[in-house]
Amino acid sequence: MSQRYPLPELKDLPEDLRQRILEVQEKSGFVPNVFLALARRPAEWRAFFAYHDALMTPETTGRTSGLTKGEREMIVTATSAANQCLYCVVAHGAILRIYEKKPLVADQVAVNYRKADIPPRQRAMLDFAMKVCLRSHEVDEADFPALHAHGFNDEDIWDIAAITAFFGLSNRMASFSGMMPNPEFYLMGRVPREKK
Amino acid sequence: MSQRYPLPELKDLPEDLRQRILEVQEKSGFVPNVFLALARRPAEWRAFFAYHDALMTPETTGRTSGLTKGEREMIVTATSAANQCLYCVVAHGAILRIYEKKPLVADQVAVNYRKADIPPRQRAMLDFAMKVCLRSHEVDEADFPALHAHGFNDEDIWDIAAITAFFGLSNRMASFSGMMPNPEFYLMGRVPREKK
Amino acid sequence: MSQRYPLPELKDLPEDLRQRILEVQEKSGFVPNVFLALARRPAEWRAFFAYHDALMTPETTGRTSGLTKGEREMIVTATSAANQCLYCVVAHGAILRIYEKKPLVADQVAVNYRKADIPPRQRAMLDFAMKVCLRSHEVDEADFPALHAHGFNDEDIWDIAAITAFFGLSNRMASFSGMMPNPEFYLMGRVPREKK
Amino acid sequence: MSQRYPLPELKDLPEDLRQRILEVQEKSGFVPNVFLALARRPAEWRAFFAYHDALMTPETTGRTSGLTKGEREMIVTATSAANQCLYCVVAHGAILRIYEKKPLVADQVAVNYRKADIPPRQRAMLDFAMKVCLRSHEVDEADFPALHAHGFNDEDIWDIAAITAFFGLSNRMASFSGMMPNPEFYLMGRVPREKK
Amino acid sequence: MSQRYPLPELKDLPEDLRQRILEVQEKSGFVPNVFLALARRPAEWRAFFAYHDALMTPETTGRTSGLTKGEREMIVTATSAANQCLYCVVAHGAILRIYEKKPLVADQVAVNYRKADIPPRQRAMLDFAMKVCLRSHEVDEADFPALHAHGFNDEDIWDIAAITAFFGLSNRMASFSGMMPNPEFYLMGRVPREKK
Amino acid sequence: MSQRYPLPELKDLPEDLRQRILEVQEKSGFVPNVFLALARRPAEWRAFFAYHDALMTPETTGRTSGLTKGEREMIVTATSAANQCLYCVVAHGAILRIYEKKPLVADQVAVNYRKADIPPRQRAMLDFAMKVCLRSHEVDEADFPALHAHGFNDEDIWDIAAITAFFGLSNRMASFSGMMPNPEFYLMGRVPREKK
Repeated sequence: MSQRYPLPELKDLPEDLRQRILEVQEKSGFVPNVFLALARRPAEWRAFFAYHDALMTPETTGRTSGLTKGEREMIVTATSAANQCLYCVVAHGAILRIYEKKPLVADQVAVNYRKADIPPRQRAMLDFAMKVCLRSHEVDEADFPALHAHGFNDEDIWDIAAITAFFGLSNRMASFSGMMPNPEFYLMGRVPREKK
Repeated sequence: MSQRYPLPELKDLPEDLRQRILEVQEKSGFVPNVFLALARRPAEWRAFFAYHDALMTPETTGRTSGLTKGEREMIVTATSAANQCLYCVVAHGAILRIYEKKPLVADQVAVNYRKADIPPRQRAMLDFAMKVCLRSHEVDEADFPALHAHGFNDEDIWDIAAITAFFGLSNRMASFSGMMPNPEFYLMGRVPREKK
Repeated sequence: MSQRYPLPELKDLPEDLRQRILEVQEKSGFVPNVFLALARRPAEWRAFFAYHDALMTPETTGRTSGLTKGEREMIVTATSAANQCLYCVVAHGAILRIYEKKPLVADQVAVNYRKADIPPRQRAMLDFAMKVCLRSHEVDEADFPALHAHGFNDEDIWDIAAITAFFGLSNRMASFSGMMPNPEFYLMGRVPREKK
Repeated sequence: MSQRYPLPELKDLPEDLRQRILEVQEKSGFVPNVFLALARRPAEWRAFFAYHDALMTPETTGRTSGLTKGEREMIVTATSAANQCLYCVVAHGAILRIYEKKPLVADQVAVNYRKADIPPRQRAMLDFAMKVCLRSHEVDEADFPALHAHGFNDEDIWDIAAITAFFGLSNRMASFSGMMPNPEFYLMGRVPREKK
Repeated sequence: MSQRYPLPELKDLPEDLRQRILEVQEKSGFVPNVFLALARRPAEWRAFFAYHDALMTPETTGRTSGLTKGEREMIVTATSAANQCLYCVVAHGAILRIYEKKPLVADQVAVNYRKADIPPRQRAMLDFAMKVCLRSHEVDEADFPALHAHGFNDEDIWDIAAITAFFGLSNRMASFSGMMPNPEFYLMGRVPREKK
Repeated sequence: MSQRYPLPELKDLPEDLRQRILEVQEKSGFVPNVFLALARRPAEWRAFFAYHDALMTPETTGRTSGLTKGEREMIVTATSAANQCLYCVVAHGAILRIYEKKPLVADQVAVNYRKADIPPRQRAMLDFAMKVCLRSHEVDEADFPALHAHGFNDEDIWDIAAITAFFGLSNRMASFSGMMPNPEFYLMGRVPREKK
């Protein structure tokens, strides 16, 4: 389906999009396809990445989160697996491996997070994320004490829910538009870097 | 659950949020709860409404859509019903009634859109929206010809998918946070205005 | 689908059916479509309404129920929503609003009863009704204590189950035959009557 | 669960119920438990069996059906299996064997009707019954031509839907109330009677 | 579908297959179709029955099981019903009746094991089997204490899981290949043998 | 759960098991955990690997298959993903990458095979495998022509079904017993070997 909604050329994009994309390319060594796939509609692109940043790099919006960077990517990976989104599982699984410094964790979380080698706190976090992802209409007050018991406060729980909800949007757009993960993502974070 | 994430006071909000909210209040006669419920996190609020506007009032972002305003609200209502989101069904059902000038259509779409009194074009639109909502991983090229046959072009189809995806996010946040519809919404658009 | 099984003329119906229908018309100001849609088969019509009356107006059959009239209609509305039956959600939602004197409750129960503004007793009642509706094969002794704790005795529980089961029948017949709610139902009970 | 709603004594029942039950006992050699289990509420009992007779022995209500007696019981067996209702699968499976004079057909239909040794007409009939049973909200005009092609007219199709809907009610009441099949049913119709 | 994969002739089979099949025929009075249906691929046949024997007649492989022969067949019957496998429900239901000396138990377990007349130990056994059958990815440590409480040790629990898993394989092959139960199975064990 | 069913020591195993395991170790450089996890029950181990070999290395049992080695592993990976089996997705995904010489294909098939970069023949193969995996009771004659059109004959189709069925067994045993993939598998086949 990549032809139906072709990726735009970087040179044809508005300056603010191009600037951000060049920064990402500088940092990552390549342009993740999501940056181009959504850029055909600049207004949606801007809102998407503003939302992304508010949740995934809250410090850039003047907020701190009780979730670690790795935990946030873990939620994304589990949600994307539940929604069977190829782009997001592969791309965010890569980032998860890097942040957590655990080369095996992304595949574990994607296939069956219940069997992943993660601490109980993260298991509880993913149980709740899956409820928001799959049965949000059943979420209620009774879900909070179990999360509090693992050290999550109400702001952290909002983060879990909001990240799950936002990537449910991302998953649907990626699957709908036939977004394919860049080949680079598949291998990132799998081979521990040698110490120098 | 309204106490867990209490609505902020209008006076405590950043100026841009307060400004927009006052405009909405001016226009609608009341402040829809979603504007306050999400305002406790201004960065997310700004991204949410920027995304909302890009899809629901595209003309404000320099784009036109092949979907009518009523069709866009119809997608929201059907998606929100599938996700059992009380706030969004009631609030957007109200707007749907007003835009379509059909006092019965929102309840029909919310309970079972297959039985709603809508033309085949809108039925095909909602069939596709429900696939994006519930089985986005199965969307593929084979879904497009049926939509083209009803006059939707690829940009319109992107609109259907994106609106469905965005309100899937909205639905999850509303259900998670216990957002309740303002009482005003329930009756809006049900009584045809008398001609003057 | 209304043409496939056309509504019969009142004048062509057996006397007992016509009599009851005229009474309903007298009381309601219109003839709810279910009375005509099923009347094409008088024997089924008689059984249907005899069953309906035994459960919904038990006093007409010499029995009292521990459920209020509003609670019975609340079960019908929740069951009909679970079965996505347009006719029954709209028609019985209207009656629910009137009996409970709560203009908002029907939409809340229909979209997501877990978020409805109802007391814990009614929430427990609807949880059980949904189990009978969707997973009756799993009902067992363990379901009773929670209901007893809310003041329901075994006869009340029979009422919950029987109303759920009967309207499951009604829902299927209405959806199958394309029964459409009378326009009058949509607005009934939404505007509180002014006190005189 | 049989103790929670104990079967009443025949002598304590209203005369019309006792009369019918004695007739059944005379004919069958035993009293099927459903006749006693529902008799604790005579008004519901009368409606239940009036409905039953209108659909299953239409000739007693002055109507003929295009479905054979065996076909009607086949619908009941398939519906009851889908609803996992022990009483109805065993009791109506027995009657199905007898009417169809096929000792194996009831188990086949109950386990997987798609593999049963039945003609295409009956397969189409059960496909439609299962749609009414499990997804009645999706039934629409497109379902009718396939049934017409197998010789079912619109009245026959009403019969299929109504029998499915009625036994969905019966299944829920039986499972809810813990109704157990009489031991006699399990063996009925399994051993072909010798010709004399 | 029986023609697509026709049953081979006994005389055309390898000697070890023919020998085992003749022994079964000698003992049962007929050749169960599974022995012929799988024999078209001798290597798979040998592995299938070796696995079968290791689990279902462990004493032939030098192991004893804490499950009775009847309990093992009960697991097979429940699993096969969940997978809607006609061959296995009918064939193993027959063996279940014989081993348990309960003519009614197979139909009860096949239709709804929750309503079957079995002791709590066997109910817990089937609850766990159904979890392995339908949601094996959710099995975890928390499932074991309930089984231990009913006297199952870890080896017994392995047996429950392995029998469920093996017959999931068997069910899929039987349904795929259109395997039909021999008529003899339907009646076996239903009529208690008279004492001599 | 690894402690509940501890892996046996190689030295304690029967000679034939030890011999095979040493061969695998020689060839792979490590002992895949499935060889040890099942070895605690030698009779089941022997049947499991005999079945495995009959389907996955049919040439060792004197049979050839119309499926390539890569296609067989692709079925295993898709089936294991559908059953959320961590061990099998990771271990067989690795073998799939190696056989197909496509470093990206395993993750694609595991997350959403509909979006994988595979030819239509393999897509049709996986569609059928998923039907056998998830709805084997619905498989019927109508499934064969589509497969024939892609060049699969009836023996190939048997292979697809049997591999799916066998690994459904494997998946359940792995999830039940808490089998974890060896770390070596995660990286195998991801980095194309340099040509010498």
